[in-house]
Amino acid sequence: MNIQNIVIVSPMVKELKEYIEQYKLNKSIRYITEDALTEEDLDWADAFCGFQVQKDTDYSKVKWVHSLGAGVDGFLYHQDWNENVLLTRTVCSFGQRIGEYCLSYILKDAQAHPIFSAQQGEKVWREMTPALLDQKTAVIYGTGEIGSKVATILSGFGMKVYGVSLSGKQKPAFNQVAAVDSDDSLIKEADYVMNTLPLTDKTADLFDKRFFDQVDHIGFINVGRGKSVVEEDLIEAIDREEVRFAVLDVFREEPLSDTHPFWKHPNITVTPHISAVTTAKEAVDCFVNTLHKVEAGDVLENKVDVQKGY
Amino acid sequence: MNIQNIVIVSPMVKELKEYIEQYKLNKSIRYITEDALTEEDLDWADAFCGFQVQKDTDYSKVKWVHSLGAGVDGFLYHQDWNENVLLTRTVCSFGQRIGEYCLSYILKDAQAHPIFSAQQGEKVWREMTPALLDQKTAVIYGTGEIGSKVATILSGFGMKVYGVSLSGKQKPAFNQVAAVDSDDSLIKEADYVMNTLPLTDKTADLFDKRFFDQVDHIGFINVGRGKSVVEEDLIEAIDREEVRFAVLDVFREEPLSDTHPFWKHPNITVTPHISAVTTAKEAVDCFVNTLHKVEAGDVLENKVDVQKGY
Repeated sequence: MNIQNIVIVSPMVKELKEYIEQYKLNKSIRYITEDALTEEDLDWADAFCGFQVQKDTDYSKVKWVHSLGAGVDGFLYHQDWNENVLLTRTVCSFGQRIGEYCLSYILKDAQAHPIFSAQQGEKVWREMTPALLDQKTAVIYGTGEIGSKVATILSGFGMKVYGVSLSGKQKPAFNQVAAVDSDDSLIKEADYVMNTLPLTDKTADLFDKRFFDQVDHIGFINVGRGKSVVEEDLIEAIDREEVRFAVLDVFREEPLSDTHPFWKHPNITVTPHISAVTTAKEAVDCFVNTLHKVEAGDVLENKVDVQKGY
Repeated sequence: MNIQNIVIVSPMVKELKEYIEQYKLNKSIRYITEDALTEEDLDWADAFCGFQVQKDTDYSKVKWVHSLGAGVDGFLYHQDWNENVLLTRTVCSFGQRIGEYCLSYILKDAQAHPIFSAQQGEKVWREMTPALLDQKTAVIYGTGEIGSKVATILSGFGMKVYGVSLSGKQKPAFNQVAAVDSDDSLIKEADYVMNTLPLTDKTADLFDKRFFDQVDHIGFINVGRGKSVVEEDLIEAIDREEVRFAVLDVFREEPLSDTHPFWKHPNITVTPHISAVTTAKEAVDCFVNTLHKVEAGDVLENKVDVQKGY
């Protein structure tokens, strides 16, 4: 594929430009913030690189769209996609970042940070033994690049790690993988459940009352997409102690509204969608690497299957 | 060595007895709580297994003392020891336990838990990118069994890990090891400093003003012994921002007194000496394993060098 004109659309165009210029690409590049993108830019461009912009953006005008995020639901979910347009996504240190995010909250729980903090506030010296991770079982929804990396990190501590995926196909990073519509017996063993799934029709509202009724006293961590969780069902599951605590980095609506009950819930940790931030340098490295492969006609590991939606 | 009569002294004798009986040892064993130990028990016993008891206990009456803790300063520090008495110590999952303890507080910092928690309290949605551990440098004082295990865990995340030991001898788990009395240039690179050293004359008051003046904005974690830290110097180091935060599991006096300034210090986390609790099962497995080796005359990896004090 011949790519000459590239439009790069992002709130961080200045930093992206700095790194892209270091590559000395022999291309025409327009750096544009999201509100400044026009139809003319898309008519001119061979390639679009950015996060999704307005809903009505006509990506069929370009040959190739590269998503600066790992998730591409902003381009595909409940939208038409012209299959003649190549769609690729950023794959870089997301797995490691999300792994360290998840592990930090699992260790916070296993090492009883909240209990010792409360005791310190009361000047109470009361011993209790933190749990070793090799006594714990994790279930990770999503067994792709990110889920597998999280599994590898947790397995390194001797945790038993199960995967759940749409296909149920076995993957080496997991003790066992089940299909999402199987009998869910794995999930009953879980101490911690993490969601790393992309948002598609099959993963929307997946974590609902039916799911939560099968688990017992879990820590629930969502680093996938907010729309995979039925938020009122999660709150009820905490009330019924099916969920001991939830750590949420993604929400149905972001930013979370001021009136949302998650903010003040004592068993819910809210973080502002930061578990897998791409640095400008990582984004540029991945984009340029993909550009070279697109031009050479090489196999693209980060090509999106637009039917599947990831 | 022939061991027939064993006195086991511990607050958790009931649990120890349960596990020891599973081994069906052909020995005479007395299970005693610390306050109930008499001279006659020591006259009777070939071996003593327990934590240190009163200061004036005459261990020279037995042939072998096995410490239920990893640290043996309770037996040796500022006390005479009859070198005819074999001293061994418990070595089991301490390294893993202390590693998970340290990692939990390093990740709490790198993943900015306190910042996101404060933002949640104010309903503030403000993004910031957590630091990946491969950008961080750790310095671990103590390169023995425990320090090496902590180093291995942290290195697994791509952290640069230096060791500091009395000898300065290189160890495979560390990028580099320096002697404690060397020029300390390694320490200037540290983001996190952990102490895992035993208490001896050479490690008492090691973390003093002279030490803290060499570091910049570190997280300081003490899982070794409290008497290695000059507590007022630590508080001053926090005031001068040489230390950003301290996580302390051990103290000069335990339990920490009600009036101690550590309890209410906003940059100090206090935990009640729980980073390396031995479970009864682990303690028994290690003791019985050592007993078999003592009787067979095998090499003992957990024999204490009473001159060195560890």
